[in-house]
Amino acid sequence: MSLLSIGTLAFDAIETPFGKTDKIVGGACTYISLAASYFVARSRVVSVVGGDFPKDRLNDLQSRGVDLDGLQIKEDEKSFFWSGKYHTDMNSRDTLVTELNVLESFDPIIPDSYKDDTSYLMLGNLAPVVQLQVLERLSVRPKLVVLDTMNFWMDIAMDDLKKVLKKVDVLTINDEEARQLSGEYSLVKAAEVIRQMGPKYLIIKKGEHGALLFHGEDMFFAPALPLAEVVDPTGAGDTFAGGFIGYLAKTDDVSFENMKRAIIYGSALASFTVERFGTEKLESLTPDEIEARVAEFIKLATFNMDFAAV
Amino acid sequence: MSLLSIGTLAFDAIETPFGKTDKIVGGACTYISLAASYFVARSRVVSVVGGDFPKDRLNDLQSRGVDLDGLQIKEDEKSFFWSGKYHTDMNSRDTLVTELNVLESFDPIIPDSYKDDTSYLMLGNLAPVVQLQVLERLSVRPKLVVLDTMNFWMDIAMDDLKKVLKKVDVLTINDEEARQLSGEYSLVKAAEVIRQMGPKYLIIKKGEHGALLFHGEDMFFAPALPLAEVVDPTGAGDTFAGGFIGYLAKTDDVSFENMKRAIIYGSALASFTVERFGTEKLESLTPDEIEARVAEFIKLATFNMDFAAV
Repeated sequence: MSLLSIGTLAFDAIETPFGKTDKIVGGACTYISLAASYFVARSRVVSVVGGDFPKDRLNDLQSRGVDLDGLQIKEDEKSFFWSGKYHTDMNSRDTLVTELNVLESFDPIIPDSYKDDTSYLMLGNLAPVVQLQVLERLSVRPKLVVLDTMNFWMDIAMDDLKKVLKKVDVLTINDEEARQLSGEYSLVKAAEVIRQMGPKYLIIKKGEHGALLFHGEDMFFAPALPLAEVVDPTGAGDTFAGGFIGYLAKTDDVSFENMKRAIIYGSALASFTVERFGTEKLESLTPDEIEARVAEFIKLATFNMDFAAV
Repeated sequence: MSLLSIGTLAFDAIETPFGKTDKIVGGACTYISLAASYFVARSRVVSVVGGDFPKDRLNDLQSRGVDLDGLQIKEDEKSFFWSGKYHTDMNSRDTLVTELNVLESFDPIIPDSYKDDTSYLMLGNLAPVVQLQVLERLSVRPKLVVLDTMNFWMDIAMDDLKKVLKKVDVLTINDEEARQLSGEYSLVKAAEVIRQMGPKYLIIKKGEHGALLFHGEDMFFAPALPLAEVVDPTGAGDTFAGGFIGYLAKTDDVSFENMKRAIIYGSALASFTVERFGTEKLESLTPDEIEARVAEFIKLATFNMDFAAV
């Protein structure tokens, strides 16, 4: 089923306790598209880059079936750039540099052929007003809309964010963001408040502590795979989102049971991303490696409770 | 199978964002014994209290099948007292008062009938030197020895702790303690280092983030149940330990598969403990309530992955 993703194609410069990079290719939509490409033969991107974005990376995405007709290339401008430094626990980071560049005036253009043929829409992290524009510029409402956002937008654009929230099916945020958005400390209470804002499904990403899916009265918990080495968490959330929606688009089944599987696949892909800097690991996986990793998740989480003990 | 537990029967005064208590009955062995009593009709305790410890609480434990022949009552002394205040996130706390009292000179006396008839031994949190004495004063080595400890002993009695570690089968500690004990940040690496210190099985308790079990090449992750209200985390780890070893003693099966089930039962009981101050909730459960809670854990963690997607 047709999948459209939005988000940045950008540059990152990353420092972690394990090393640092120069400017490397990153951005939410890069990770989303790469992750989704393991599930769907074709997907589409709406985004913007500057003339400095390497053409060979665009060619690479195209060779993976990513249609870039919705990508604006502003030859005289520069791509979005983010630089950050992770603390020892890898759960927190300081932003060192944010250069909006092409994002400053980003006006998303949706190719006509996408407008009535987008079944799955991944609204990757961008200004809520842009996420809303994309949604409004489609002529037929997708079957499933997944929104990713972050605390930054809650700080400076909460009203816009609330407008987008009303129109999406699934929201993915981390635990701190869920607390900020809801004003509730308990994630159970936070989930209740947030789902009243719009999304029927809420995924709370807890990094190394796994992910929670809330829907109606149902809760599902997916563990994260404990890893010997986490080199760079950048892009883990976007990889998760791309794997999640890629799996749903491939199977074309948006039931709660299938979302559980989508979360496991998303988590499995994210567990690869963090093992190397940037997209290095994510871009070089084989289907066998992915299935073996999923098997590790199954082994990690499976228990059989076949009799009453008390 | 015969279960012997050691640890404190004591007083706590607790402050959390949800309220505060005067001196109430607490202590590791109180929680361990209460939790275990849901699984085994009889268990035994080696501990010490002062004359101030309420006799009706001892009678209550006896009425639950807890044999107190190994409990020393020092009528002219005072019971151990701890007072603490939890922070908003409930994951960290400040100790306000610690009065060792009867613990200062605790010399554990093991009734003769226990010495060659202890199959399951729960070494609850106490000075490592006391834990070691108990182990050495048994004439027949138990089938399974589980050790609980905390950062406090790593700070002041690491050498003694290392001696105990060599002699136990299972260690339960939290994630920060695992990092402190091993000097490794990654829990996978920490587990490897710690298991070289002695315990073949390691359980890392992550509070609201669940628990990990490591053994050989195997890993198992048990989620924590997300709760709308956590009122008081005191005793959660001890409840977990008591439920864990109680379940193993009842089923008399120390396989990895059965330890998974024991962790789910321990987690289920701990999820009750934190819903009220002190032992209030733990002491008033019915088997149906416990089984219903376990069913919630199963629902939370279960997914079916029945086909390859990539």
